[in-house]
Amino acid sequence: MLFSLSQGIAVLERTPGTLHAMLSNLGPDWIRATEGPGTWSPYDIVGHLIHGERTDWIPRARLILEQGEHRRFTPYDRTAQFHESEGKSPADLLDEFAQLRGENVATLTGWRLTEESLRLEGEHPAFGPVTMRQLLATWVTHDLGHIAQCARVMAKQYRTEIGPWREYLPIVDR
Amino acid sequence: MLFSLSQGIAVLERTPGTLHAMLSNLGPDWIRATEGPGTWSPYDIVGHLIHGERTDWIPRARLILEQGEHRRFTPYDRTAQFHESEGKSPADLLDEFAQLRGENVATLTGWRLTEESLRLEGEHPAFGPVTMRQLLATWVTHDLGHIAQCARVMAKQYRTEIGPWREYLPIVDR
Repeated sequence: MLFSLSQGIAVLERTPGTLHAMLSNLGPDWIRATEGPGTWSPYDIVGHLIHGERTDWIPRARLILEQGEHRRFTPYDRTAQFHESEGKSPADLLDEFAQLRGENVATLTGWRLTEESLRLEGEHPAFGPVTMRQLLATWVTHDLGHIAQCARVMAKQYRTEIGPWREYLPIVDR
Repeated sequence: MLFSLSQGIAVLERTPGTLHAMLSNLGPDWIRATEGPGTWSPYDIVGHLIHGERTDWIPRARLILEQGEHRRFTPYDRTAQFHESEGKSPADLLDEFAQLRGENVATLTGWRLTEESLRLEGEHPAFGPVTMRQLLATWVTHDLGHIAQCARVMAKQYRTEIGPWREYLPIVDR
């Protein structure tokens, strides 16, 4: 499937609602569950997505769009949520994510990107040249990866409670 | 994490909303996308969940609860959705799933299961004796596994569109 702006946005604008439906008002046993030491809970994941809204996707896209002298992205801080989320409730985080995402999708839509602007390049700190199209496709895929991760983290909590069904549910051992 | 009825129901009652938020009004390129021949699309997955609501979880739990002479489960038909969903729109399926799930959660809640009833056994056609507790934990885990699957199937559609970011997004190759 080729990337298209409208199909990509269709996913981006749904993610806050998906996470809200999945996580809102769930108890801490689910929200704070992880896959083991050093892995992320649904709470951590929402914090990570918030950080991406603030510092990654739109700022990088803007850098590409402007085609200024400096087109190198700032490296993404993959653990920012551990201090930035401090003291916030899961509901706070879900609301914050929904608000930021709404603003960012509006910004993206407002740019009315053409096929030509999707071919513009920026410089990734590790990969070198990347296109606007790749960046936006990655934003979408990154959302879906973290939705899958939330569901997987939660599924694993019942790894032993499902007894012999573990054989049929590979997600608890993935 | 030990299974508890209230925490399990908290997930079960959220699944229709999660799938609705993720999938409703998405175009066919997303809804009918698969991971390759013989694998399921989000559309197929919702149909599969509907079949489970009708024939699997609550009927099996009822068989256990009644403790009659016949406690052996009917085998689950894992491809029923391919004929049962025929002619139905994605919106039809999401609504049907939400309605059935609502009824089934109400039935489950109405039983007011005790710790003792969670220990009652039925007979799985492949595994032999299984408990009510294992069956209900599996229902929850099965939901989460299919939510993760929907997100993964969609993520894979952009496997090549994300360019070098593929290295950071293992979900597209899982």
